[in-house]
Amino acid sequence: MRVLLATRNAGKIEELRQILAEAAPEIELVGLDAVADYPETPETELTFAGNALLKARDGVKHTGLATIADDSGLAVDALNGMPGVLSARWAGSEKDDAANNALLLDQLADVPDGLRGAKFVCAAAIVWPDGRELVVHGEMRGTVGRGPKGANGFGYDPLFTPDGFDRTSAEISAAEKNAISHRGKAFRELASGI
Amino acid sequence: MRVLLATRNAGKIEELRQILAEAAPEIELVGLDAVADYPETPETELTFAGNALLKARDGVKHTGLATIADDSGLAVDALNGMPGVLSARWAGSEKDDAANNALLLDQLADVPDGLRGAKFVCAAAIVWPDGRELVVHGEMRGTVGRGPKGANGFGYDPLFTPDGFDRTSAEISAAEKNAISHRGKAFRELASGI
Repeated sequence: MRVLLATRNAGKIEELRQILAEAAPEIELVGLDAVADYPETPETELTFAGNALLKARDGVKHTGLATIADDSGLAVDALNGMPGVLSARWAGSEKDDAANNALLLDQLADVPDGLRGAKFVCAAAIVWPDGRELVVHGEMRGTVGRGPKGANGFGYDPLFTPDGFDRTSAEISAAEKNAISHRGKAFRELASGI
Repeated sequence: MRVLLATRNAGKIEELRQILAEAAPEIELVGLDAVADYPETPETELTFAGNALLKARDGVKHTGLATIADDSGLAVDALNGMPGVLSARWAGSEKDDAANNALLLDQLADVPDGLRGAKFVCAAAIVWPDGRELVVHGEMRGTVGRGPKGANGFGYDPLFTPDGFDRTSAEISAAEKNAISHRGKAFRELASGI
């Protein structure tokens, strides 16, 4: 069975492909780069699950394939769970990871060490052509530091130290991260439900 | 009785002075500009009440006078109540009202009209030299627009239309605003409790 993963992120595709190879080997995963003229899905919902479902429904609509999509971000305790769904555009729609990280550090400048808890959250959805839908969540808890460390990963990884680690999620390997990450957890749970 | 209002904002002092003239005419209100060498109180708490109390306790400590202080900000529904206590430094500690407004508008760019609710919140505290403390809250609900309008007020006023109005809180007069504002409500309740 061919299943679309509604992303152009090669890292996500490879990660899900490895997970599915064990959990559901009959599935052949394809990414958006294999689909011609695929339109961007605006992420207009206020929840991760809402955005994941938007993207997965669009995939079914445009390809007829069962479609998996995810939405994820960093929920900071001292910011009441924000940046949340706005993680990728926290410093503004024209900004990048560096600007998002700098803004977050500045906003948290006066927040003491004991109150810098946060979690990465991922919602992963699959929508089938017959209309069935499944959404699952994965989380990775940790703390937000006071400056960037490490060159792996992307987004807020250089600021985030997962609980139980003394390195940021930009300092651990992709394999270590996938084993504990919000997206790894969500993708594994989704794979077990396919 | 002399009471300190722990602020250098002349508008706040005048507003509270007018309220106290009716509610507690025996009180003579003084601002921080009347106190020599008064140190800045860092607003390090994660709640409005916490910051108001920090500032009021500092006033008692440095002057021996009963001290009133307030902390206020804008709590946006779609941002889980943020910018909240970070309202004045949302775009960073070196930024100003214009940068804060621009960032908020950018973060809310994809939030539809029906989900742009928000409230201004004020916590006002009084601390007496004998250690008694009182904290009250006032709120003003409304919606966040898509661009600045009006030249009155400060902070997020140009973006915020109070419920029941068709003008932003930067387009209504100071008297109109004080009658409905979060700070006006909190100061009146505090005055009734003195």
